Amino acid sequence: MTHVFELQTPAVIIDADALEQNLRTMEQALPGGKLRPHVKAHKCTALAARQAALGHRAFTCATISEMEGMARAGLGHDLLLANEVLDASRLGAIDARVTVAVDSEATIAAAAAGGVDEVLIDVNVGLPRCGCAPEDAGHLAERARAHGLVVRGVMGYEGHAALVEDRVQREELVASAMERLRSAHADVGGDVISAGATGTYDCNTTATEIQAGSYALMDTAYEKLELPFRPALSILARVVSVSQDYAVADCGLKALGMDHGNPRVESGRVWFCSDEHITFAPGSKLDVGARIRVWPAHIDPTIAYHERLHLASDDHVVDVWEVDLRGW
Amino acid sequence: MTHVFELQTPAVIIDADALEQNLRTMEQALPGGKLRPHVKAHKCTALAARQAALGHRAFTCATISEMEGMARAGLGHDLLLANEVLDASRLGAIDARVTVAVDSEATIAAAAAGGVDEVLIDVNVGLPRCGCAPEDAGHLAERARAHGLVVRGVMGYEGHAALVEDRVQREELVASAMERLRSAHADVGGDVISAGATGTYDCNTTATEIQAGSYALMDTAYEKLELPFRPALSILARVVSVSQDYAVADCGLKALGMDHGNPRVESGRVWFCSDEHITFAPGSKLDVGARIRVWPAHIDPTIAYHERLHLASDDHVVDVWEVDLRGW
Repeated sequence: MTHVFELQTPAVIIDADALEQNLRTMEQALPGGKLRPHVKAHKCTALAARQAALGHRAFTCATISEMEGMARAGLGHDLLLANEVLDASRLGAIDARVTVAVDSEATIAAAAAGGVDEVLIDVNVGLPRCGCAPEDAGHLAERARAHGLVVRGVMGYEGHAALVEDRVQREELVASAMERLRSAHADVGGDVISAGATGTYDCNTTATEIQAGSYALMDTAYEKLELPFRPALSILARVVSVSQDYAVADCGLKALGMDHGNPRVESGRVWFCSDEHITFAPGSKLDVGARIRVWPAHIDPTIAYHERLHLASDDHVVDVWEVDLRGW
Repeated sequence: MTHVFELQTPAVIIDADALEQNLRTMEQALPGGKLRPHVKAHKCTALAARQAALGHRAFTCATISEMEGMARAGLGHDLLLANEVLDASRLGAIDARVTVAVDSEATIAAAAAGGVDEVLIDVNVGLPRCGCAPEDAGHLAERARAHGLVVRGVMGYEGHAALVEDRVQREELVASAMERLRSAHADVGGDVISAGATGTYDCNTTATEIQAGSYALMDTAYEKLELPFRPALSILARVVSVSQDYAVADCGLKALGMDHGNPRVESGRVWFCSDEHITFAPGSKLDVGARIRVWPAHIDPTIAYHERLHLASDDHVVDVWEVDLRGW
């Protein structure tokens, strides 16, 4: 077996044990169809196949490419594009069960014109992003049915609650968000109330299915919530230069999602990142050639830079998974 | 010809006229070998071929993959990896003239072991990143020669000066940085003094060649310097949802380098970006389906997310260039 130290750096390393534990912990909490895993978090059909093997056969996607890739990988049992599109022709051509979110006359018309059969009415539950006002949901459902679309129900993403540290406050935000979704659902009908995230997976009691994705690999931003999931992803980098006060490793802006700020390095303090470098003050002396672990501040846009994930156990590569759902 | 509005969004659009003007302006200032264009800025051999056609046949790279890709594209006349590597075996296998930066005993040994013939001694000229102390450069050159390597000269990147707004201050920083490089060069020997960036291209009079890359597409961070280069890259996005106070377009964290902060949108104020969305307050009413231009805050890590660049003139696609130098 390949030792991780033989890998070309920077290399994404997935802690196989942490991943497995995260997947099983979630499966116990939300078995089968109660979880609709979001693949945007990992963009990897091999990882999605693990989730499907544990009983979660319906998936959430954020892009048309993710939908196509999941269908190609034989994971098209029930795919939801939890996002609005104005050209659904590629969606209509997918050989799988395809549902798309709609929140306007234009997105309804696009779904119908593109040959999609099923939709969810996307409701704004408090996060300023997509979704109609709850009071407009019933009318949009009528419009969708008038276009010949099957309306499976509603979805609404309480992203503004997902990272709130105080549990009581988080529960209150989720409750008021889901009150909006429930009122929309009363007007829309259908079996599906799709919502939720890793941060709200155990306090959203309204949704019929939770769209969590981050739980598998976990983001450092979720750490303060004390969820029962462990960080499973790090970047292996190599120290390429050492000076008196700092060291430089080969993991930079093109290997890291930076919207949440600088990554962490083990036993060191990060100074700054450049395109291909991280400059940091090491906690103890490091030699040129030493390997370090870098923990990105945001996993989703980190993975989108990489071609593959190295599944590792005891520092040995046990599998290599292609990040095959990139692009649009 | 395809109208840009027919493209799947988000799509990288290159203003063909702005690019051409930028390339020609630089070629007039630094003809032929006085410029060693840095390909990390665009990661695109088709764009590099345009630079070569204008007379710049020597290139700078930041990764081994960039070196391999340039050689594969027939652009291997004189390739410099301006970065340190601990495993040079892939470099040694490239069918092209390959030079690599070294700044330590370990990187010298790696170059020799990997079958690379030529090196530059990388000197720290003030930016806390790679590079040896100027006073160590002569000794390292001796060590490289003892390993059988040809030492072509020195390099040093004055990145700490490149974005300084005040021209006098910038010139002073460049001068003191190049004083360090000159003293190192006196001990090292060789024909090459490689340095510089787009921000210092016209005030670095020491370097025999300037490693500028950003000038071709230009970064918004360089705007305050009032250089004679125009922004040539934007992302075409589509409004997928509209609410009372804001609109949402399909260009998010996985389409944008975010280390310099939020992008700009034409006639609007950005609220925040999510994985696949940008939420913004439009300057005037926008309908669902409208196209907008998004100007990323940092181009290099933006391009690394995309598979292709759409060269456009008068909103029509005149060429599609693959971003073929991604990964490591």
